[in-house]
Amino acid sequence: MARAAAEDDAFLYERIADELDDLIGRGALRAGDRLPSVRRLSEERGVSVATVVAAYLLLEGRGVAEARPKSGHFVRARSSAEAKVPSVPRRTAAPARVSIDADADQLIQAMLQARHGEVPLGCAYLAPELLPLRKLNTMLAQVAREGGGPGGAYDELRGSLQLRRQLARLAAGWGVALGEDELVTTLGGTDALNLAIGALTRPGDVIALESPAYFAFLRMFDHHGLRAIEIPTDPRTGLDLDALADALRRAPVRAVLCSPNFQNPLGARMPDEHKERLVRMVSRRGIALIEDDVYGDLAHDGSRPRPAKAFDRDGSVLLVGSMSKTLAPGYRVGWLAPGRFDEPVLRRKSAMTLACPTPTEMAVAELLEHGGYERHLRRLRRALADQSAQHRDAIVRAFPEGTRVSQPQGGFVLWVEMPHGISGIELQARALEQGIAIAPGPIFSARARFQSCIRISSGHPFSPRIHRAIATLGRLAHES
Amino acid sequence: MARAAAEDDAFLYERIADELDDLIGRGALRAGDRLPSVRRLSEERGVSVATVVAAYLLLEGRGVAEARPKSGHFVRARSSAEAKVPSVPRRTAAPARVSIDADADQLIQAMLQARHGEVPLGCAYLAPELLPLRKLNTMLAQVAREGGGPGGAYDELRGSLQLRRQLARLAAGWGVALGEDELVTTLGGTDALNLAIGALTRPGDVIALESPAYFAFLRMFDHHGLRAIEIPTDPRTGLDLDALADALRRAPVRAVLCSPNFQNPLGARMPDEHKERLVRMVSRRGIALIEDDVYGDLAHDGSRPRPAKAFDRDGSVLLVGSMSKTLAPGYRVGWLAPGRFDEPVLRRKSAMTLACPTPTEMAVAELLEHGGYERHLRRLRRALADQSAQHRDAIVRAFPEGTRVSQPQGGFVLWVEMPHGISGIELQARALEQGIAIAPGPIFSARARFQSCIRISSGHPFSPRIHRAIATLGRLAHES
Repeated sequence: MARAAAEDDAFLYERIADELDDLIGRGALRAGDRLPSVRRLSEERGVSVATVVAAYLLLEGRGVAEARPKSGHFVRARSSAEAKVPSVPRRTAAPARVSIDADADQLIQAMLQARHGEVPLGCAYLAPELLPLRKLNTMLAQVAREGGGPGGAYDELRGSLQLRRQLARLAAGWGVALGEDELVTTLGGTDALNLAIGALTRPGDVIALESPAYFAFLRMFDHHGLRAIEIPTDPRTGLDLDALADALRRAPVRAVLCSPNFQNPLGARMPDEHKERLVRMVSRRGIALIEDDVYGDLAHDGSRPRPAKAFDRDGSVLLVGSMSKTLAPGYRVGWLAPGRFDEPVLRRKSAMTLACPTPTEMAVAELLEHGGYERHLRRLRRALADQSAQHRDAIVRAFPEGTRVSQPQGGFVLWVEMPHGISGIELQARALEQGIAIAPGPIFSARARFQSCIRISSGHPFSPRIHRAIATLGRLAHES
Repeated sequence: MARAAAEDDAFLYERIADELDDLIGRGALRAGDRLPSVRRLSEERGVSVATVVAAYLLLEGRGVAEARPKSGHFVRARSSAEAKVPSVPRRTAAPARVSIDADADQLIQAMLQARHGEVPLGCAYLAPELLPLRKLNTMLAQVAREGGGPGGAYDELRGSLQLRRQLARLAAGWGVALGEDELVTTLGGTDALNLAIGALTRPGDVIALESPAYFAFLRMFDHHGLRAIEIPTDPRTGLDLDALADALRRAPVRAVLCSPNFQNPLGARMPDEHKERLVRMVSRRGIALIEDDVYGDLAHDGSRPRPAKAFDRDGSVLLVGSMSKTLAPGYRVGWLAPGRFDEPVLRRKSAMTLACPTPTEMAVAELLEHGGYERHLRRLRRALADQSAQHRDAIVRAFPEGTRVSQPQGGFVLWVEMPHGISGIELQARALEQGIAIAPGPIFSARARFQSCIRISSGHPFSPRIHRAIATLGRLAHES
């Protein structure tokens, strides 16, 4: 019957399904709600009963609705609350030389080089419409017209003074007292992390980091010739400090790299007491903490948690920030507060890039000073909280029973742990065939852990298209 | 008498000396020309004879003028042609692990961190007034206003397509056929070189390079943990290929790094036959040539020599270019054509910087397409040819007998070899006290060769101030 309706009515039944799907996605219809009866919807829309039935069959197929005998159709009852958060890897592995082999690199490339038109659930990229691009570019145009315009000389090695002043002002708001001469601008967070790693380590050194770890960290380790020791990480409270203490006793760890605020991929938020203890641990051992705080501005509850750097008494913490997640990734403006490693970091910046571009740094400084950055952040945080919940709901409804989904407290990625035996890598490949990008779990480990995990980005506003894509992912997972 | 005049007339005699000095510097008065008689000048200017005599004494002191008995004053006859070009180091040294110690680094920092108001003879920086900054920034403002404005997403890993198209068009003009997909944009030439080096080598590897070598290359080697083998380099024809061939036989050289067009610091231009032979040599051995062509657009005779890449048949050459020496250093726009090393270079860019800033790349692309880049280059080349000759003349006149000065065929640095026993490092220190920045010779070698050499930048229009500074340098050299 659905088939016949589809042939008669082309895409009408699909459109009706999408509209209901959308209402569910937005939360206007909630789990357990009864959907309109077939007859009523057919009358309201002036379409055939067969078309409505086809629409409901489609919704059932997507895992969004279910038919109850003699009662009609309902929004599927599996709520987000039911799904557990992902498990914590039980043990710390021995240090492993990080080497991204061709296969793993292909997985990463497949995700990074998203083809035009793909459903963007792979990379942790924000939808441009969430960013104040018009305002930022107005600032850039202004900067370009002032005087002869910027760019005639290499900027200071530390970076634009105007920008560093604004960053110091922001940092004060998070409880971190930083002078403008304790900051170094960088080409986004990636460059900042590489500067920090390069200044602290030599090939063969060991760095401890979270597990699962942001895959880009592991690629950096590969290029720096480092060994990684992966520390169990709780999806709610972050790095397991007892496990870390144990690792520090057992291995010659040179530095700890972690993201206390909204770790990628888990979205964990480390409690302040943990941050304080973490800083004490590295300081006592005379090693360094590289703190990646690029998601720090994106708490879903609207707060701005302190970085671990706020508890740093002796310069052991190198704090990394970026404007890529809040203003404009394509501007490539990031920064580093290197603590007592200021001199080697500056030497390395001088040798590796010499200076950062002046115009983009000036435009960001202008926006931070005059562009309503705080107002923008408030809006962005709300949007990301909504998107995260919507994506999570859709995943919980669509994926097989037993699937666990993280409940991130900030940022815009979700960590999905599927039942044992479902392969994240296979799912990525099959999803790509359907035009859907996701990140497979094993790239978040130097030892190819997390085989049955995937990471899903919630950086784009939830839409029927995304809803359908998640339903498709769920179906593919069911089929594996 | 001079003393008395000076006391009466404050700075008047100095001003008159400066004006004459300036005329000599600009070439309006040439070596051997007779200066106006004391009486005539005193009448023309309405100043006392004592003042004019004081001015001439000052010019004599600067080494610019000489008094001939009963004939009057003349522009000093030592012409540029008299001075020999610097000597070629006699032999290739064994590979040395490059390690920039604190002392050497301080020398470099002293030069790079020029204090405000210093006479800028140290760094190879162009005066901003020589650059089309207003035009470039107009393009930037335009780009910023188009659509929502750039920056909402990370640019392609390869960099702006629009920019790569323009670069491919330029390269075709130098005899290098490059598709837009054979180019990778970078954060200036420095980043391009680090990408190339990082993609080709592992710590401990050996790279052969020119001697004297651009000091920034040696700092890069330090950060990459590489060993350098320094090959004798002729101030006119560049890298000594017989010496290189010998080194390739004796040491496990992984790559050759050199600047066939207007090598920094010598300004040498390698003949095309040498380029062809060089490319054959590396290709036959299966190693790579990293070709730094950032000065290629700046031939003093107005030509545009081909890069060695023009002779590359199998992708052995990684060609590095930059807009820092011709458009705007502060934009940090450079590029790399990695040949057969495309894949490791892209992987490394992805891990180290992820992407370059979009707005600055777009603005440069616009300027290359619509901004009269060729016309600008013609003007710039003429200016640099003049500046180079004027700086060289002044050095030849001011420095001790036996000083040798390079005759660069492009670019804007001069290599000065002082008589044995005069220390370039001491001269740098004493010049800094006088507010004059220069680059000391030993930083251009991993083995602290070139003790009695300095590099002088001719990147700023010649002026009485620069003329005086060079006279001061000459005096300091005489005193050592």
